[in-house]
Amino acid sequence: MTKPRFDTLLLTGAAGRLGTELRRGLAPLCKTLRVADVTPMTDLRPNEEAVTYDLADQEATMAACEGVEAIVHFGGAPLERPWEDILNANIRGSYHIYEGARKHGVGRVIYASSVHAIGYHRVEDNIDANAPHRPDSLYGLSKCFVEDLGRLYWDKFGIETVDLRIFSSFPEFTDRRMLWSMLTFDDCIRLVEASLTAPRVAHSIVFGTSANKHRMVDNRLAGHIGFHPQDSTEEFRAEVEARLTAANPHDKAVEYLGGWFVNLGHPDDEGK
Amino acid sequence: MTKPRFDTLLLTGAAGRLGTELRRGLAPLCKTLRVADVTPMTDLRPNEEAVTYDLADQEATMAACEGVEAIVHFGGAPLERPWEDILNANIRGSYHIYEGARKHGVGRVIYASSVHAIGYHRVEDNIDANAPHRPDSLYGLSKCFVEDLGRLYWDKFGIETVDLRIFSSFPEFTDRRMLWSMLTFDDCIRLVEASLTAPRVAHSIVFGTSANKHRMVDNRLAGHIGFHPQDSTEEFRAEVEARLTAANPHDKAVEYLGGWFVNLGHPDDEGK
Amino acid sequence: MTKPRFDTLLLTGAAGRLGTELRRGLAPLCKTLRVADVTPMTDLRPNEEAVTYDLADQEATMAACEGVEAIVHFGGAPLERPWEDILNANIRGSYHIYEGARKHGVGRVIYASSVHAIGYHRVEDNIDANAPHRPDSLYGLSKCFVEDLGRLYWDKFGIETVDLRIFSSFPEFTDRRMLWSMLTFDDCIRLVEASLTAPRVAHSIVFGTSANKHRMVDNRLAGHIGFHPQDSTEEFRAEVEARLTAANPHDKAVEYLGGWFVNLGHPDDEGK
Amino acid sequence: MTKPRFDTLLLTGAAGRLGTELRRGLAPLCKTLRVADVTPMTDLRPNEEAVTYDLADQEATMAACEGVEAIVHFGGAPLERPWEDILNANIRGSYHIYEGARKHGVGRVIYASSVHAIGYHRVEDNIDANAPHRPDSLYGLSKCFVEDLGRLYWDKFGIETVDLRIFSSFPEFTDRRMLWSMLTFDDCIRLVEASLTAPRVAHSIVFGTSANKHRMVDNRLAGHIGFHPQDSTEEFRAEVEARLTAANPHDKAVEYLGGWFVNLGHPDDEGK
Amino acid sequence: MTKPRFDTLLLTGAAGRLGTELRRGLAPLCKTLRVADVTPMTDLRPNEEAVTYDLADQEATMAACEGVEAIVHFGGAPLERPWEDILNANIRGSYHIYEGARKHGVGRVIYASSVHAIGYHRVEDNIDANAPHRPDSLYGLSKCFVEDLGRLYWDKFGIETVDLRIFSSFPEFTDRRMLWSMLTFDDCIRLVEASLTAPRVAHSIVFGTSANKHRMVDNRLAGHIGFHPQDSTEEFRAEVEARLTAANPHDKAVEYLGGWFVNLGHPDDEGK
Amino acid sequence: MTKPRFDTLLLTGAAGRLGTELRRGLAPLCKTLRVADVTPMTDLRPNEEAVTYDLADQEATMAACEGVEAIVHFGGAPLERPWEDILNANIRGSYHIYEGARKHGVGRVIYASSVHAIGYHRVEDNIDANAPHRPDSLYGLSKCFVEDLGRLYWDKFGIETVDLRIFSSFPEFTDRRMLWSMLTFDDCIRLVEASLTAPRVAHSIVFGTSANKHRMVDNRLAGHIGFHPQDSTEEFRAEVEARLTAANPHDKAVEYLGGWFVNLGHPDDEGK
Repeated sequence: MTKPRFDTLLLTGAAGRLGTELRRGLAPLCKTLRVADVTPMTDLRPNEEAVTYDLADQEATMAACEGVEAIVHFGGAPLERPWEDILNANIRGSYHIYEGARKHGVGRVIYASSVHAIGYHRVEDNIDANAPHRPDSLYGLSKCFVEDLGRLYWDKFGIETVDLRIFSSFPEFTDRRMLWSMLTFDDCIRLVEASLTAPRVAHSIVFGTSANKHRMVDNRLAGHIGFHPQDSTEEFRAEVEARLTAANPHDKAVEYLGGWFVNLGHPDDEGK
Repeated sequence: MTKPRFDTLLLTGAAGRLGTELRRGLAPLCKTLRVADVTPMTDLRPNEEAVTYDLADQEATMAACEGVEAIVHFGGAPLERPWEDILNANIRGSYHIYEGARKHGVGRVIYASSVHAIGYHRVEDNIDANAPHRPDSLYGLSKCFVEDLGRLYWDKFGIETVDLRIFSSFPEFTDRRMLWSMLTFDDCIRLVEASLTAPRVAHSIVFGTSANKHRMVDNRLAGHIGFHPQDSTEEFRAEVEARLTAANPHDKAVEYLGGWFVNLGHPDDEGK
Repeated sequence: MTKPRFDTLLLTGAAGRLGTELRRGLAPLCKTLRVADVTPMTDLRPNEEAVTYDLADQEATMAACEGVEAIVHFGGAPLERPWEDILNANIRGSYHIYEGARKHGVGRVIYASSVHAIGYHRVEDNIDANAPHRPDSLYGLSKCFVEDLGRLYWDKFGIETVDLRIFSSFPEFTDRRMLWSMLTFDDCIRLVEASLTAPRVAHSIVFGTSANKHRMVDNRLAGHIGFHPQDSTEEFRAEVEARLTAANPHDKAVEYLGGWFVNLGHPDDEGK
Repeated sequence: MTKPRFDTLLLTGAAGRLGTELRRGLAPLCKTLRVADVTPMTDLRPNEEAVTYDLADQEATMAACEGVEAIVHFGGAPLERPWEDILNANIRGSYHIYEGARKHGVGRVIYASSVHAIGYHRVEDNIDANAPHRPDSLYGLSKCFVEDLGRLYWDKFGIETVDLRIFSSFPEFTDRRMLWSMLTFDDCIRLVEASLTAPRVAHSIVFGTSANKHRMVDNRLAGHIGFHPQDSTEEFRAEVEARLTAANPHDKAVEYLGGWFVNLGHPDDEGK
Repeated sequence: MTKPRFDTLLLTGAAGRLGTELRRGLAPLCKTLRVADVTPMTDLRPNEEAVTYDLADQEATMAACEGVEAIVHFGGAPLERPWEDILNANIRGSYHIYEGARKHGVGRVIYASSVHAIGYHRVEDNIDANAPHRPDSLYGLSKCFVEDLGRLYWDKFGIETVDLRIFSSFPEFTDRRMLWSMLTFDDCIRLVEASLTAPRVAHSIVFGTSANKHRMVDNRLAGHIGFHPQDSTEEFRAEVEARLTAANPHDKAVEYLGGWFVNLGHPDDEGK
Repeated sequence: MTKPRFDTLLLTGAAGRLGTELRRGLAPLCKTLRVADVTPMTDLRPNEEAVTYDLADQEATMAACEGVEAIVHFGGAPLERPWEDILNANIRGSYHIYEGARKHGVGRVIYASSVHAIGYHRVEDNIDANAPHRPDSLYGLSKCFVEDLGRLYWDKFGIETVDLRIFSSFPEFTDRRMLWSMLTFDDCIRLVEASLTAPRVAHSIVFGTSANKHRMVDNRLAGHIGFHPQDSTEEFRAEVEARLTAANPHDKAVEYLGGWFVNLGHPDDEGK
């Protein structure tokens, strides 16, 4: 049996949907997995240690970075939220993570960015990672911010980052779009593992979908990451198409990569 | 058994070489396949209905578009012909198809364009679909025209188009070039089906070859179409190379994507 | 005094708006200016010879190309027209011109293409001549066709072409857009002269505007043509802005290069 | 005398270095110039009205946007500052401005972005506006954020933005780099005026330097803005080179567009 | 059994590491394999004929090209050497080969170029064959020279070339980098065979690695060569990672494609 | 009077056509101009010191680099010559120069490269400095070599280089092509001065022509050099066109940037 590659990894958002999956996936890679979330976790595995704090708490967030080799940063608001929430959880929270990395000499950050950082590009444009930011929401805007933050910390402080632009990673298909946008949990784990173990990542952006039939984006600039998805949604197509209505190619939610996010109103208007 | 995705599809050029293959391939996709050609067809399958007209006849061509959800437009002159033929069958005929689509609210056109729209690009240039038109014949010029026509009808009238730049789709190998240019009939059917069923195509261009050893063009801009050829010519290589003479890399027919079309004289000169 | 560079030039559309200006401009360049139009011209200058025919008449059109060194092809429908008119005057007519050039060994064609060949590109995209065709009208579509026709006759028959994508060349400002799109008559003459006299043009595309304040397209691929506009609309700005209403940046006629052409309906619908 | 183009413009940061110059420059363009700053202003011109508030105050910032046609947003921290200052003045403050624009139907925002949004690109790379963000400081990072914020408000809410990436706009030369990076105050006014009056800007990025001898960036994607700098630093070269030491081409401050900002440490480390 | 495609092939460097492998691989392709090296070879196979000479000997080198259809040029110094050695073996020697090809009408040269011609590009840049030369050594510089030499002989004399930019092709893993850079001997033979038999190669550049997990370069411009590697280093990963130390992503030897070559000093300094 | 910017500059090829002009141009820039040539020079100006040696003499060439701040390397064969001459004067000679620069800590080399390094690009392609090498002669091939040599010495040893791709710099017009390719002597001096004094050049390539009417190449990647040609050939057009025959646009010497060099045979064939 090979020994784990890392001594200690930090996983933020560990109690969330993807965080829960990643706990399973990262276990073999490290001696200690430090799992962090604002929600306390009690079901710890033998090699896990838990820390509980709000990402908006700079001191606690930075302290959790001590003694770790790499950070898998999946914490923060996972979808569109009012500005104050996005500001605190995603913008301020990620700043605290990078400051923690800087203070404690962490070498690499794997960040759960999102398709929503580029949600206003059209599917037929087949963009690659050189395409400019076009966020589709405050959520997406915060992802753009953290990508640029990682860029700065690479250029100036030498901390490596891989920004994973995850498309859809859910347990169920609730939209036909997921037939092309889905990243299965297993492929998500493969993506994080590849990002952690690639020989050099500098500051890189990788699109995260499984090897689905329709590929709306082109990962040609991420060959050095070594991500090879193994799953496909094709086996679910018949069931999903039978259950869910076909979308109109003229709907913005079909036209743009961001899907239904582009049709969301402004989150601060809700309840007004 | 899943129900067909479409109620009615129109297939033009249905009595031609590829049309005949497509009748087989499209049958499972629709309740009714309206098969059109200037040549009457009598061997109709149960779910087929035939219409017979010349594409140069605007009224008849437009009438045939009524009540269809999508048009698979493979009609017209299939190779180099004198100008008057190209003008009537391909230029005027395709205009009539698009006018029919506009009048009758057809949402999508799948058009049999051709490598001959870009026949004067070199094989070693590995072009993608952004490369400009470089027709190699009046035939190729008419394909360029229809691609631009589809672009206009998308930008102005919202009718989607996929232009299939088919390289070679024949029952026999008559030229070593076909070892790289061949699109098998089964892959041709896959290509049309993918184009009909992709969630959004806007105005797209796809190169149509099988997954052959030599890939002279790059389909990276067609990921959203979801075309995955399953065939390869490799199994025929030994037989073909034994039977047909190797070509000279300095021959224009080897240099350019268009093959022997680039060596054709002007079709209006024939017989003079 | 230097002797004229050319023996005989052919100018089509010579009785039209731009043709009339070009008669003045081309006079010093040739011993004989053959002026052609469907409308008879009687005010001939000493070095002019007139021919009268319809471009749809292949025989007459081809005959007029005999003995000329270069053709300045400004004939045809100058704006949106029903399909039959566009087909005859622009598509068939230009084919006849190129066939005349081929038959009679004419070396170079200067063609009055138009912004409407690329009218559906956005002004903020600052496209160059590599951008694909995006016609905004049947008129624009015919310009795309003739550009591709010229490409074929260059690649296959060695006839050089410069496609002049003229934006607006009118005696009066009738739209604020003309402040950026105008090509003054003098600059139009400079453009044609440069295209006729450049040492080698192969098949080239040049955007035709004066040196106006706002430059929505980039002529970087036309350096070999040597076109240097000398005029600017800036001196007319105050008067034009006082007289004509400002346009809304969200109007399609402001958004797209093609201006009000993008808002035109289909010309074949008129009167229905 | 022509009447002003705008009824009311809002200028933020009006008491700052560039704000003071812009008050002079914007006066002829509008009936009323609403000048805003956290510092009270008492030297108001006849057509000026003053509002005093902190950009971190969302209510006051949004209220100041009422009744204006366009916003010239030059407020916020003008150089590197600790994170909390950058967060409040630049990130939160600019969010408040865009929310004010959205609430009150303001059509266009002209934003004082900065070279520091792209400070880690090398001078010899001659980048254009398609180059990705590479901030050189928290200050630059906040500029990246606001550029993306403007992109979102354009794509989703239709508010136009021009991001002015100003290089150096100071009254004195304090660094030889300014010989290439300087934007004179008069050219800065020209840049803002062009951005306010261009027929359509959508979401655009313009580099802001005068027409200096060395041009480290390429404004080819901003032709539609119509910015034509009139000044050059060349007349000051002899004096500046005599007074200030030549820099080493291997210094990072010479290598990168951001100049001495790339050599700054982290602002939160100061005093520790 | 199919007859060999070629009558006579010339293999230079036939006694070297890769030459020895290629003797095995090329045997089935030709009736006679002329094996050349400065070291005499005695273990000749039945269809081999040996010639022994130094590439610096113009007369002998040219003579060996007589009567061959294609040259597989793997001779010369295979790694960094003092300038005089590089000059004689690689620069002068390759000039003699191309002169031999020109004199004796050889149609195609397959040249063992190297990653070291582009060794100063970064792994995260995922370059393709359009990226400019960035040699990392005198050895790499000589590879650049021969690539340009082949370009000249193609453009001017019509001799085809494929430049194989071989990354690492060794019997053992001596560096973790080889996990991504290795080209197995069998894939090397596939690469040479594909280059010899592609219908047209003009002047082409192909990157030579196996189908390893991490792909630092993009072979998209070599589709016409038809190279499909079949091997991967993944099966050796566990053993190699256990045996060899992980490299630091900040080391130049990890940062740049050229690996440890970028850390070499100047070879002429040795012994001084 | 300003003091000279440099203490000592080395000018190679000082007795040649351009060297003679540069002696005049460089005089004001340095206290001492070391003028080197294989031909002895006796007409020394007060601030000149002469050294006489053959570039093929490594020791002498390196010795001449001692104590200089920058090298203006215009020595070597100035046109097509047999291989042995090119090898010795241009390839070996330039290697000696760069070794001299490395040994003696010279910071910058300005190299007289040539259009002939890219002579096989077509004039209508309007290439920029990213276009790959396409030499048109052994002379051009040697220029490619030295460009790559300078790239290596920049990447590895930190010596800056500007490669000046001079088109034509002659006292007389002997070919109509010179109307677009000419770099006047005064503009040549401006080009060298700009290259010497730009704040940072790294490894850069600049095209060298005057501001002529036809611009076949695009200097957009050289903005950081600050070269602004002041001359134009337009004033000589009438005389030159009257005297020299117009060229055929189908001639290779007109088609390609390299002019008549592309029509040269192989120099080693002469006299055979």
